[in-house]
Amino acid sequence: MSSAAPIRVGVLGARGKVGQAICAAVDAATDLDLVATVDQGDPMSSFVDAETQVVVDFTHPDVVMDNLEFLVGHGIHAVVGTTGFDEQRLDTVRSWLAATPDTGVLIAPNFAIGAVLSMRFAEQAARFFDSVEVIELHHPNKADAPSGTAYRTAQLIAKAREKAGVGPSPDATTAEFDGARGAEVDGVRVHSIRLAGLVAHQEVLLGTLGETLTIRHDSLDRTSFAPGVLLGVREIAARPGLTVGLDPFLDL
Amino acid sequence: MSSAAPIRVGVLGARGKVGQAICAAVDAATDLDLVATVDQGDPMSSFVDAETQVVVDFTHPDVVMDNLEFLVGHGIHAVVGTTGFDEQRLDTVRSWLAATPDTGVLIAPNFAIGAVLSMRFAEQAARFFDSVEVIELHHPNKADAPSGTAYRTAQLIAKAREKAGVGPSPDATTAEFDGARGAEVDGVRVHSIRLAGLVAHQEVLLGTLGETLTIRHDSLDRTSFAPGVLLGVREIAARPGLTVGLDPFLDL
Amino acid sequence: MSSAAPIRVGVLGARGKVGQAICAAVDAATDLDLVATVDQGDPMSSFVDAETQVVVDFTHPDVVMDNLEFLVGHGIHAVVGTTGFDEQRLDTVRSWLAATPDTGVLIAPNFAIGAVLSMRFAEQAARFFDSVEVIELHHPNKADAPSGTAYRTAQLIAKAREKAGVGPSPDATTAEFDGARGAEVDGVRVHSIRLAGLVAHQEVLLGTLGETLTIRHDSLDRTSFAPGVLLGVREIAARPGLTVGLDPFLDL
Amino acid sequence: MSSAAPIRVGVLGARGKVGQAICAAVDAATDLDLVATVDQGDPMSSFVDAETQVVVDFTHPDVVMDNLEFLVGHGIHAVVGTTGFDEQRLDTVRSWLAATPDTGVLIAPNFAIGAVLSMRFAEQAARFFDSVEVIELHHPNKADAPSGTAYRTAQLIAKAREKAGVGPSPDATTAEFDGARGAEVDGVRVHSIRLAGLVAHQEVLLGTLGETLTIRHDSLDRTSFAPGVLLGVREIAARPGLTVGLDPFLDL
Repeated sequence: MSSAAPIRVGVLGARGKVGQAICAAVDAATDLDLVATVDQGDPMSSFVDAETQVVVDFTHPDVVMDNLEFLVGHGIHAVVGTTGFDEQRLDTVRSWLAATPDTGVLIAPNFAIGAVLSMRFAEQAARFFDSVEVIELHHPNKADAPSGTAYRTAQLIAKAREKAGVGPSPDATTAEFDGARGAEVDGVRVHSIRLAGLVAHQEVLLGTLGETLTIRHDSLDRTSFAPGVLLGVREIAARPGLTVGLDPFLDL
Repeated sequence: MSSAAPIRVGVLGARGKVGQAICAAVDAATDLDLVATVDQGDPMSSFVDAETQVVVDFTHPDVVMDNLEFLVGHGIHAVVGTTGFDEQRLDTVRSWLAATPDTGVLIAPNFAIGAVLSMRFAEQAARFFDSVEVIELHHPNKADAPSGTAYRTAQLIAKAREKAGVGPSPDATTAEFDGARGAEVDGVRVHSIRLAGLVAHQEVLLGTLGETLTIRHDSLDRTSFAPGVLLGVREIAARPGLTVGLDPFLDL
Repeated sequence: MSSAAPIRVGVLGARGKVGQAICAAVDAATDLDLVATVDQGDPMSSFVDAETQVVVDFTHPDVVMDNLEFLVGHGIHAVVGTTGFDEQRLDTVRSWLAATPDTGVLIAPNFAIGAVLSMRFAEQAARFFDSVEVIELHHPNKADAPSGTAYRTAQLIAKAREKAGVGPSPDATTAEFDGARGAEVDGVRVHSIRLAGLVAHQEVLLGTLGETLTIRHDSLDRTSFAPGVLLGVREIAARPGLTVGLDPFLDL
Repeated sequence: MSSAAPIRVGVLGARGKVGQAICAAVDAATDLDLVATVDQGDPMSSFVDAETQVVVDFTHPDVVMDNLEFLVGHGIHAVVGTTGFDEQRLDTVRSWLAATPDTGVLIAPNFAIGAVLSMRFAEQAARFFDSVEVIELHHPNKADAPSGTAYRTAQLIAKAREKAGVGPSPDATTAEFDGARGAEVDGVRVHSIRLAGLVAHQEVLLGTLGETLTIRHDSLDRTSFAPGVLLGVREIAARPGLTVGLDPFLDL
């Protein structure tokens, strides 16, 4: 896009499945240079030696805090997909960042841009429609129903409708087979389909007099986090401090 | 399509909502002539006077048997969408038809060709896929969940799979919110969505390793029975005796 | 929603098809009172006599300017779906409003909230995906392909991508049947389906590595403008001056 | 399903990508035993030594005829996904089979059951609807538009409609952007979408007064041939002689 020098990128957890996919994605981007990769047993100093500007961390809750302390301490930006952050951990990261105010850390539970956008759009649209329901569809090996994303989506929808003073979706059902109308999450109906051949999919259906709006997200393979990670890498230098969730980077 | 003389068609219940739509559809078809219409208080003899070949009956369970006795007795074919037929009534119709073996009567609960075809296709495909689930979506004023059509579709699927020795759809769910996985009809999961702005819709989802097949039917207004009724009118002369359900007329 | 006194609403063009639907929708809303209806030949003074706060105008380009001059002149807010506004007409309305700064006028080409939202979401999402295409599906009596809404949607997408420096959607097609890849609107592929049984539908498909996002809008009947009109009626008092398009009222 | 002895299966081209997937699928099936695998350089006699009942051949047009001559000559059934068969080759296979009338050979261009079924259903439904169009959606690296499957589907639809005397789909388009209405294949409109994130998908849309029927097939990865191959392996002993295409094995 620009003719600026490529961003110097490092990857932590580089030999893991996700790490390898990120290395490949960074390699394929002409505006990014993969200058250092680190996995268990490798020295963190490689990042400093390679003058790394941004490090992507998809590692493990046990090591991610040490990683961040090192990176922030050396003024290296971090884009983090590792899980396990509670408010206490986030406060610790904030305290480290206070010492180097130009450094940025992005911690996000979901880097799939399509998933993040569909949640946001569902939330924005929710108050304009009489009815809203969520259908999530996954491979049959999934243990929980509904999915975490569907659960979170329903919560966001419910909160947006409550804030706008919108009542519950109309429903005249008087004779129901057990479970036919799905699960209720904060008053929003959620339906979980499990089907061989599927990966991870979600539909938010919104309806009012004479029209419906459907927001559908399909994850067809596990590389769907890559574009969101690259977006984080490209933008992090312009957003110092701690950011939680990819949303603020999307400037919607 | 052919240059034969138009078929002489009559309509019973002609002033009702459905009856009016059928009159309009017959009027619009160049191979059909609307020659007589009858409603409450009008004499059935109009059909005989007008040399009617086929009468369409969308009336009421209380009067339909009298109607059929008259029509069959006068050798007039009948295409019937009125409900309320049990085995005893069907046997009575058969006994009347025995006396005029060239006359045909078609009694069908559903004339929407798309609905009939989707049930048939779902039944045919069911045994080739590891997984199958049904989603039905209707306006929020519907009282029953699942819909009668979805219930019947699930039964047909279950029977086809049982006959082929196919086991239940795989499902690793261990943590479920009440109702998330839908209702079970003969082992097939059925999900009922109720949404303002919708009319009547159904999806059968079938999945196996790496691929899915979806059969979707959308009824967008209440005239969707018309093409099936006209098909019945055109074919009934070639199918003497009693036919129950539109399927046999489709020659699949 | 609130316990405030109902808004006093009038309808211009009240005997037309659209006007009747709006009267019915206002009647059905507990927070709105239908206090005056006017059609050709009726005196505009009825609105003043009835202390009307907001008038809805779905009339004709020939009379809408006279209507607005009267309404604004009497400090009555207006929600306008009549077409035919160019920059000159808008400027005239602005000049009238300058004299009564508390009065609001909303003029919108499309009151279907779902349509307005899908265009907005498509525009917002466009820059995050490698690929984007538009499919619009309509009844077969439509004369133009693509639809005006699809054309406008493609333009908004193209502009958003250009602004963000995103290149064209990837496409390795080397052997193409004429027309297979659709029409190009500012570099965005648009496909027009015409099918009996459909009304008015549109899908925006966005895709990147491993995931897709689909924004679908279905208009199932012609009352789909009603919720947007009521939204305008409820909000107009809080938004003095001229507003063009429903978007600003949605506070996205 | 049954308690009979497992079928003894061999795989030709076992070290190729497809061959490996088939070996894995056979291994996973409790009613099949993988008893011999052969690739370039391995002796065909392994199949005889292992008392193989059925061999799956996904190899190359250059070697497949030699493979089949050997297999049929030894009374081993064959299930063949290798391409390059013309009428002359098929006749040669038939002549070999004439000498061992109990042996079966299945040669199919497409083993994805969902794809085969959707073509069949589209063909069966085509004559009952006023309108039909085909949308195919693929990854953006595809060179041809429309896809071969969409082209073949449109041909089957056109033939079925012609045979039933159904006229062209109605279309009132008078103002069209070049390509908006898609490509025409034997009078059927076909639209090709190319989108990052997609794999291989197809929708057949059928519509008539007030209702539509949609048949959608999604191929989410390249193992979608496996269930069809296993079906062939299980059924081939009961179908001696040459069968071309998977359809007859589906008993629709």
